[in-house]
Amino acid sequence: VSAPDYQAILDEILDEVQLLLQQGDVANYIPRLAHVPREKFGMAVVTLDGQVFQTGDAREPFSMQSISKVYTLTLALDAIGDKLWQRVGREPSGNSFNSLVQLELENGLPRNPFINAGALVVADVVLASCADSRAQLLATIRGCTGNAQLRDDAEVALSEKAHGFRNAALANFIRSFDNLDHSIDDVLDFYFYQCSLAASCVDLARGFLFLANQGRCPWTGNALLSPDQAKRINALMLTCGTYDAAGDFAYDVGIPCKSGVGGGIVGVIPNVLAVSVWSPALNAKGNSLAGSAALERFTSKTGLSIF
Amino acid sequence: VSAPDYQAILDEILDEVQLLLQQGDVANYIPRLAHVPREKFGMAVVTLDGQVFQTGDAREPFSMQSISKVYTLTLALDAIGDKLWQRVGREPSGNSFNSLVQLELENGLPRNPFINAGALVVADVVLASCADSRAQLLATIRGCTGNAQLRDDAEVALSEKAHGFRNAALANFIRSFDNLDHSIDDVLDFYFYQCSLAASCVDLARGFLFLANQGRCPWTGNALLSPDQAKRINALMLTCGTYDAAGDFAYDVGIPCKSGVGGGIVGVIPNVLAVSVWSPALNAKGNSLAGSAALERFTSKTGLSIF
Amino acid sequence: VSAPDYQAILDEILDEVQLLLQQGDVANYIPRLAHVPREKFGMAVVTLDGQVFQTGDAREPFSMQSISKVYTLTLALDAIGDKLWQRVGREPSGNSFNSLVQLELENGLPRNPFINAGALVVADVVLASCADSRAQLLATIRGCTGNAQLRDDAEVALSEKAHGFRNAALANFIRSFDNLDHSIDDVLDFYFYQCSLAASCVDLARGFLFLANQGRCPWTGNALLSPDQAKRINALMLTCGTYDAAGDFAYDVGIPCKSGVGGGIVGVIPNVLAVSVWSPALNAKGNSLAGSAALERFTSKTGLSIF
Amino acid sequence: VSAPDYQAILDEILDEVQLLLQQGDVANYIPRLAHVPREKFGMAVVTLDGQVFQTGDAREPFSMQSISKVYTLTLALDAIGDKLWQRVGREPSGNSFNSLVQLELENGLPRNPFINAGALVVADVVLASCADSRAQLLATIRGCTGNAQLRDDAEVALSEKAHGFRNAALANFIRSFDNLDHSIDDVLDFYFYQCSLAASCVDLARGFLFLANQGRCPWTGNALLSPDQAKRINALMLTCGTYDAAGDFAYDVGIPCKSGVGGGIVGVIPNVLAVSVWSPALNAKGNSLAGSAALERFTSKTGLSIF
Repeated sequence: VSAPDYQAILDEILDEVQLLLQQGDVANYIPRLAHVPREKFGMAVVTLDGQVFQTGDAREPFSMQSISKVYTLTLALDAIGDKLWQRVGREPSGNSFNSLVQLELENGLPRNPFINAGALVVADVVLASCADSRAQLLATIRGCTGNAQLRDDAEVALSEKAHGFRNAALANFIRSFDNLDHSIDDVLDFYFYQCSLAASCVDLARGFLFLANQGRCPWTGNALLSPDQAKRINALMLTCGTYDAAGDFAYDVGIPCKSGVGGGIVGVIPNVLAVSVWSPALNAKGNSLAGSAALERFTSKTGLSIF
Repeated sequence: VSAPDYQAILDEILDEVQLLLQQGDVANYIPRLAHVPREKFGMAVVTLDGQVFQTGDAREPFSMQSISKVYTLTLALDAIGDKLWQRVGREPSGNSFNSLVQLELENGLPRNPFINAGALVVADVVLASCADSRAQLLATIRGCTGNAQLRDDAEVALSEKAHGFRNAALANFIRSFDNLDHSIDDVLDFYFYQCSLAASCVDLARGFLFLANQGRCPWTGNALLSPDQAKRINALMLTCGTYDAAGDFAYDVGIPCKSGVGGGIVGVIPNVLAVSVWSPALNAKGNSLAGSAALERFTSKTGLSIF
Repeated sequence: VSAPDYQAILDEILDEVQLLLQQGDVANYIPRLAHVPREKFGMAVVTLDGQVFQTGDAREPFSMQSISKVYTLTLALDAIGDKLWQRVGREPSGNSFNSLVQLELENGLPRNPFINAGALVVADVVLASCADSRAQLLATIRGCTGNAQLRDDAEVALSEKAHGFRNAALANFIRSFDNLDHSIDDVLDFYFYQCSLAASCVDLARGFLFLANQGRCPWTGNALLSPDQAKRINALMLTCGTYDAAGDFAYDVGIPCKSGVGGGIVGVIPNVLAVSVWSPALNAKGNSLAGSAALERFTSKTGLSIF
Repeated sequence: VSAPDYQAILDEILDEVQLLLQQGDVANYIPRLAHVPREKFGMAVVTLDGQVFQTGDAREPFSMQSISKVYTLTLALDAIGDKLWQRVGREPSGNSFNSLVQLELENGLPRNPFINAGALVVADVVLASCADSRAQLLATIRGCTGNAQLRDDAEVALSEKAHGFRNAALANFIRSFDNLDHSIDDVLDFYFYQCSLAASCVDLARGFLFLANQGRCPWTGNALLSPDQAKRINALMLTCGTYDAAGDFAYDVGIPCKSGVGGGIVGVIPNVLAVSVWSPALNAKGNSLAGSAALERFTSKTGLSIF
């Protein structure tokens, strides 16, 4: 079979989601995110052979937020391998309400690396394994995306920290179970730094292609992870990558995805492509509302699915 | 690439799991299950083109238990389609401890169709849509497996009912939220009937092949579900099919699976094959201990994965 | 100091609560309760020396509901003494949402004898210790109240059973932990029978006087409980007697009380008197709205308090 | 009736509890508490008319810990009265496991002022209402106890802060609901200061006498609280004063008590006396093991009870 006409499909989707852009709520817990216009919409596809397709605001950088957790997990797995799973689980979290009680019942072991509690532990692991964690993370993402200009937004990080009482609560709680080695401040600073990195749809589709390619960046040939590790990150994205909507995403979209409250979502179709979408307004579960719909249309129109 | 030598791989696995057969605990809440020898081990693969590979006790019937939930879900989806999701969710359950509190917090809507609460609602839907639900279910499973002798074990069903206070508690609780239409007894009787159906590894690998084949039985051509519905059941199995170990299964095995406390597990590799395994002793999460290891080895040795 | 003028105080309260009678909601899960006029209000005081004071509808019988749990607890303590506490706890339940998860976390041991789960275990104990539990319970209440006409309302019991899915869920769940010896139906039937007993304010003030009198009925001299046991039932009423408002009651009213969804509340001032009130409309916590206010005024006007 | 012979009773109890002093565990989360010898035992009674009875180590100061929460609550109630209840509840907490999930479900409103979460809010209220909160608290306790030498133990406060990740987690979590006005550090510093105050049994029995005397210090005549407020603090101690054992205390001891992990417990018998006990080793619920037994014997031997 010939490949789908990705460009035509992206353009169709751009048309179809227009009405949805008025629905949902833009994240408003910090001013920098609150001021992003809800009309923004971008989408990009990058195939394993290097073709790039894009539509809308696909070149405009936005705040990666939780999407960055895939990269810190990559660094942590590369550094300590499966020992990571002695400090964080691999199961879906059930629902957000459980986050704290779950930590208590399970002795401070976060359910998975993509909930905030788990990402704090992953951040602690990265801090332990890199001389300069920020530089290492930035270099990794710049390498994967091929965008040497990609950088953090210090104002976002500062705002997040100023409003980050829940994350501080989580960090202190995990620390009370001896599951953090670094100081609360160091862990939170690195965590807020990673969330503040800004990337465009094209950056992110390119930047996740190594997960569709057995852990290896297709154009540099650089192996970030072993083939097994890459598959396993995909598995984690499928079961835990979209907050409490992982089941709905698996059912409706059918591919591993990671979302962020900045409105971005990135998906991986192993051995084929990576796809990313951005639309700032979120649905009740904290995923981009139009972005979720766009990805559902994309897999439906292309017939692509891992199932 | 040529296909793996499935027969050699199954035989290797049979050797490798021998030591594991002494570990774990055979389900003991009813005598019929408790008396199954822990030494039993069978495994079978059936490919889309109809080849059958098997090893060990792959022809010996065992109690399907929760594996049957895939078939009642198939009947319910066929009957009322996506309306089903108004009565049951599609998200992983987090952990078993949540089952009842989750029902309370979410107004009697079970988290997914594979936890017991959800299967009771699915049973209620099937009761509403079939004149003779038992006959319909049995005919469906006989059709899929090609085994016209496949049948229930009435002693198992009776024992389960006699010890089924938790399921009766769940049914009454769901009923208090008006999410069951039939009498508690009718729902429980049908539920215990479905759990008591007995099938062999070869039966089950054959019987799940329609899910690897876009919803269509490969040898009869009979469509049980639309291609989309088949994909979605696979997605549900991946995120919710193995109790509270779905994340571990996705990570370690990497394919959609459904397990039962009888010690059976069935997995689906879309467009390629179905694989099943049976070993009665269970691990702490209620999945066959040696069976889980066998499936992990199978996908590792064959390189098959959906990720 | 001379005794307060109880009659004047009751009459004042009757005036003061009139506006409150329009607030709150009459229990509506069964028709018999739903049809009780919200304008009803009665209040009665009986002192240790036998004086009776009353106002409003204090002679009209209403459904005792959970108030009857004090009598079944009395029978159970009399029968097996402190062994009861091996099967039910003595701690406040925290909040209603916990009832089922609490049972699960604490292996089927209900938190206290006044939550429904605990009352089902108490009912099971009474069933084991009395040849005819209903007759024994009725004789006890008739004896305490001095009302030989006091009886159950069979229509209420039948309606409760027909809508009693939550209680059936609880009973099955407790049974799954082996903390019920009798059949689910026997336990539920006795439980619904006790809830359906009907008594007036005067009956109940008289009927609780033994708890203000060291466990002994003041006019017959009959000892239902030892002085220690009577004190302890008062302690349980204070910490657990008014659903999830026990803390508020202790704070605002300051005496041990037991309430029921029929709108009755009975309070005990050790060595002084018993007081009861009835007003059918309930507040958000399930206690009589005007009745709670009336008791608060009563202890405030009389200066009576255990603190 | 003549008063019991308190001195004889205290001496009897001192004998009777000797064997218990080997049971339980001394709090060991900070060295200063861990090094207190488990053989210590003191008990004191002070009657409303000023008589002091004591036995054992009743003059030796120990760490007040949570007992100090009664004084900060006194200051907060004096400062803002019943407005306090807009920021903290008055219900028992059910069980410790709930602390965080309860905060989440109830929007950051702690269940009562004696759980840590509630005491942090109370500390925040005191910080807002006193120019120098520490000085004010110390002056209040010195005044009530009549001990002008009573002071804090700075090493305890520092150690508590160094290990106080759970309290920091709680403070951050409450802050995320906007239920703290001061900085996390200020609130925690004041909280750890109050916990580090050291007092003897005689100090504490004297120091709680105002609660047995309508809010008024018997020998200075100074009113710390209104009679109503004093009753209400007694009610709160009864329902919430001994961690998750409030129901057991009400049942077994029968008087309002407040305990601390330093091994102290103070009880109040309204209009009669205050009683305090100290024994460092704690039972599973965090209350002094021998101290709980001693209080049970005291109320049993004297016949004193509020019920």
